[in-house]
Amino acid sequence: MDVTCNPLYQTGKHESIFDLDLCNHLLYTYFLLMITGNNLIGYSHSAKGNKSFCRLLHINGQTTTNSFYEASIDEVNEAVTKASTAFHRYRLLSGNQKADFLQKIAEAIDASKDELISIAMQETNLPEARLKGEVQRTINQAKLFAQLLKEGSWVTAIIDTAVPDRTPLPKPDIRQWQIAIGVVGVFGASNFPFAFSVAGGDTISALAAGCPVVYKAHPGHPATSEKVGVLINQAAKESGLPDGVFSLLQGEGHETGVALVQHSLIKAIAFTGSLAGGKALFDIAAKRKEPIPVYAEMGSVNPVFILPDMLASKAIELADKLAPSNLLAAGQFCTNPGIIVQQQSKDSETFVSKFGEHIKNACGECMLTGNIYNGYNQGIEKLSSNKDVALMATGQHSKMENAATPHMFKTSAQSFLEQHDLMEEVFGPSSLHVMAQSKNEIMAVAENLSGQLTVSVWATEKDLEEFGDLIKILELKAGRIIYNTVPTGVEVTQAMVHGGPYPATTDSKTTSVGTNAIYRFTRAVCYQGSPQKFLPDELKNENPLGIWRMVNGEHTKDVIGK
Amino acid sequence: MDVTCNPLYQTGKHESIFDLDLCNHLLYTYFLLMITGNNLIGYSHSAKGNKSFCRLLHINGQTTTNSFYEASIDEVNEAVTKASTAFHRYRLLSGNQKADFLQKIAEAIDASKDELISIAMQETNLPEARLKGEVQRTINQAKLFAQLLKEGSWVTAIIDTAVPDRTPLPKPDIRQWQIAIGVVGVFGASNFPFAFSVAGGDTISALAAGCPVVYKAHPGHPATSEKVGVLINQAAKESGLPDGVFSLLQGEGHETGVALVQHSLIKAIAFTGSLAGGKALFDIAAKRKEPIPVYAEMGSVNPVFILPDMLASKAIELADKLAPSNLLAAGQFCTNPGIIVQQQSKDSETFVSKFGEHIKNACGECMLTGNIYNGYNQGIEKLSSNKDVALMATGQHSKMENAATPHMFKTSAQSFLEQHDLMEEVFGPSSLHVMAQSKNEIMAVAENLSGQLTVSVWATEKDLEEFGDLIKILELKAGRIIYNTVPTGVEVTQAMVHGGPYPATTDSKTTSVGTNAIYRFTRAVCYQGSPQKFLPDELKNENPLGIWRMVNGEHTKDVIGK
Repeated sequence: MDVTCNPLYQTGKHESIFDLDLCNHLLYTYFLLMITGNNLIGYSHSAKGNKSFCRLLHINGQTTTNSFYEASIDEVNEAVTKASTAFHRYRLLSGNQKADFLQKIAEAIDASKDELISIAMQETNLPEARLKGEVQRTINQAKLFAQLLKEGSWVTAIIDTAVPDRTPLPKPDIRQWQIAIGVVGVFGASNFPFAFSVAGGDTISALAAGCPVVYKAHPGHPATSEKVGVLINQAAKESGLPDGVFSLLQGEGHETGVALVQHSLIKAIAFTGSLAGGKALFDIAAKRKEPIPVYAEMGSVNPVFILPDMLASKAIELADKLAPSNLLAAGQFCTNPGIIVQQQSKDSETFVSKFGEHIKNACGECMLTGNIYNGYNQGIEKLSSNKDVALMATGQHSKMENAATPHMFKTSAQSFLEQHDLMEEVFGPSSLHVMAQSKNEIMAVAENLSGQLTVSVWATEKDLEEFGDLIKILELKAGRIIYNTVPTGVEVTQAMVHGGPYPATTDSKTTSVGTNAIYRFTRAVCYQGSPQKFLPDELKNENPLGIWRMVNGEHTKDVIGK
Repeated sequence: MDVTCNPLYQTGKHESIFDLDLCNHLLYTYFLLMITGNNLIGYSHSAKGNKSFCRLLHINGQTTTNSFYEASIDEVNEAVTKASTAFHRYRLLSGNQKADFLQKIAEAIDASKDELISIAMQETNLPEARLKGEVQRTINQAKLFAQLLKEGSWVTAIIDTAVPDRTPLPKPDIRQWQIAIGVVGVFGASNFPFAFSVAGGDTISALAAGCPVVYKAHPGHPATSEKVGVLINQAAKESGLPDGVFSLLQGEGHETGVALVQHSLIKAIAFTGSLAGGKALFDIAAKRKEPIPVYAEMGSVNPVFILPDMLASKAIELADKLAPSNLLAAGQFCTNPGIIVQQQSKDSETFVSKFGEHIKNACGECMLTGNIYNGYNQGIEKLSSNKDVALMATGQHSKMENAATPHMFKTSAQSFLEQHDLMEEVFGPSSLHVMAQSKNEIMAVAENLSGQLTVSVWATEKDLEEFGDLIKILELKAGRIIYNTVPTGVEVTQAMVHGGPYPATTDSKTTSVGTNAIYRFTRAVCYQGSPQKFLPDELKNENPLGIWRMVNGEHTKDVIGK
């Protein structure tokens, strides 16, 4: 299928196809489906607000608009209140019951994926192949959490049994597990209309935890959002879940989101987006009468350190690998490698030159929204006008609306250390190459980094011996340290950390990708001296669910007292 | 030994001795040791500030004072800067090295305990037996964390091994563990001069995590604090640890604490104290350029629900058990049972009457400080002047300074539901008995509770069947649900949750007691595709430390790849 924008960097995974012959700008052949433009308050469609907003769409080369009702404050209240009522029943469902719900969501998305991708292409300018990959990831993620719930050990049962004859006092029986915290407000991301949006990692991990979700759709893809929201609610209804387990609110302005964060029945917020947006929600939440956690993933410049020995042997290969990662999906990834650090040498010149060729040959791709495009150009302008920054290469300009021209800049480590601004994210296909004069300068750059989602180190064993302390410095700066591969692409596993120190996130202790994301929406509770009969199955001596438990300091699936 | 205040409720544990003949008010026989009155900035004594403050002491019936230099802003900065430098070496110590340090702290306290208790008695008015128990708990706690470090599995190693032939893309090797977050600021509690103060749970769990501590001493016991601080620093020096791993700052005003929370190199705050104090620190931290977590444990009214069948069989026994818990240490426990809920009946009258006898026979005990005493009396006055609250009993008035007279009040469930003020903590030997007219009213009281550290349910199996939903309601309100025993006394184990929803704490997802307290001061980091050689021992295939790890979804101590 032909798409409006260049599908060069299409998989959303790190080993993407890089084919320079594909600079075509053909038109959509799909038409926009009719969209109701409503909010979803539990199982009901709702359009009570007085305000509406439009999303520009590009169909067959024509610009058209699609209208959506902005959720009113009353609708926010209605959604949260319904969710809060639903919470008391929903949180007590068994792991299998919640797993069936998530499985149904996955199946519903799978069954509608062609239609979903078609709508998302019109709304986001993202190419089909990229969206196909993202939908599959979204489906897999819901299935992974369903598996987690079925297996059951995620509740982290910790059991210390009684010692009645301990002196001077008997030791009581204490049993701990994780329970859901309440209604969660989720703010979708602009750049992942599926995997970090309506049925994305935040929603799915909150639902898995036992928390109803009130979802604030990103105005960049309201129609895609509504369609996915309808599927979630159908799955909820089919599963016999209480009305209000999921609601979706549309809104372009800030009012809907602010009202959501301020609502007293909301117990946590998950957000993926800009530093300005995430920090604003954090500040609002901190000022509530009852403060609540805000899990905001706010992006990163994802520095890549290329060490001398590695550079000496593979300069061209490394550039061939890293440039596509930087250009992937018009650079619109929170793991996009925006800063590349290396020691000045003839090898670094080879690398920079080859990287520059990729940039020069790349053509501008349409960005997700006009706002993002404007933000990108402001960032480029700021770098271009900095006298200590040199423009090394620009890509081919595209006449398509909101098409971002790739840029590559260079600066000295000294300038980078002196100007904290140079560490700011330029969301899009831009890179800043930081040239150090010595190992010491490389270490100083590392020490001066602000919080990141990822830091990559491209190094041979010899490099790692020589730069022994570098990893120790970098692990204090990021959630994930990546060796010898590109940062774009986030594996959804148990060990993944997609998080990092501020300003990468507002809570460095959590991850928004991988199964541990569920713990953002739970807290520990313990029962002291509870009769067996009144304990949850997960904590009973018999271990009827056969889960892993920590019993008196040992991990075991054994029955207690046998 | 004879003490100024009544040592009736002396053990700090829940089954305390209740002996009504001990209303004696004899004088100290110990003398105050000479105290330098300095701050401790790393290994140096420091007294650079221009301000000082006095702590009133009672020795041989005479009031005397002891002066302390208030830490200046420069001293705060010096302590935090030293700690931040020390962090880079300290955090990388092995589990055994950190364990040795904690073990040395425990031994040093043990060796100096008579002197420590003597100083603390003069500063806090707490009786010797109570302080003896508390010092032992402090020693045991340091030893427990030393054991945790030696065993090593606390780092929560999660390993997902690579699948190189996975399609469409290879699965990378990802390995996660917990690392220390940086310098921690700890604010000591007034009511536990040892177990929640200088070498208390917050300091010890932060040091165990690998975080240097800058400790703000409570002005209620500055001499005790300094003495313990000196012991910690001696242990650090003997262990060859970097200067600055521990500092202690004195201060009566707010400036020192505010400067500590605002310092950019501080990465987390732990606090035990009042709601006003904890919330103020939370607000300051939230306004920093880089927000940091504040773990404030701010107390609780610890409601006790006594259900009808249990009450029918054991009214007198229950009163004999609960009243001493309420009176323990002049009611100065964060787990003090302040609210007692029951259904009106002849049994409840028996209970209330017997509870009242205990109150009437109890004599006033000296409180920790004049401020706490004044706060208690204000709370009592507020309850006494409430027309919907009846005064049921008062204890014997003592002429000793700051001696709190026990009080017992009664109100209807209806009034309790209408007046949210009645849920406010009165820190001291006061209880409010809430009389419900029906099961529904009991459930309504449960539903209207604010966040608590503990909720206790005294019930037979028949009661629990009948009030089936009560536990489900209560577990959303508290960190710990206690069956059929008193809430005072917090077991230091792995399964303990000493935390709870706001306003009990500012972070319901954490505990300040038990081994899981360590995770307040760590965050997860993962390594993707790291060469074996450059992984920490905890994550190497060989598992050289023999720790528990989660490998591809299974808990195991096995070597990987065998």
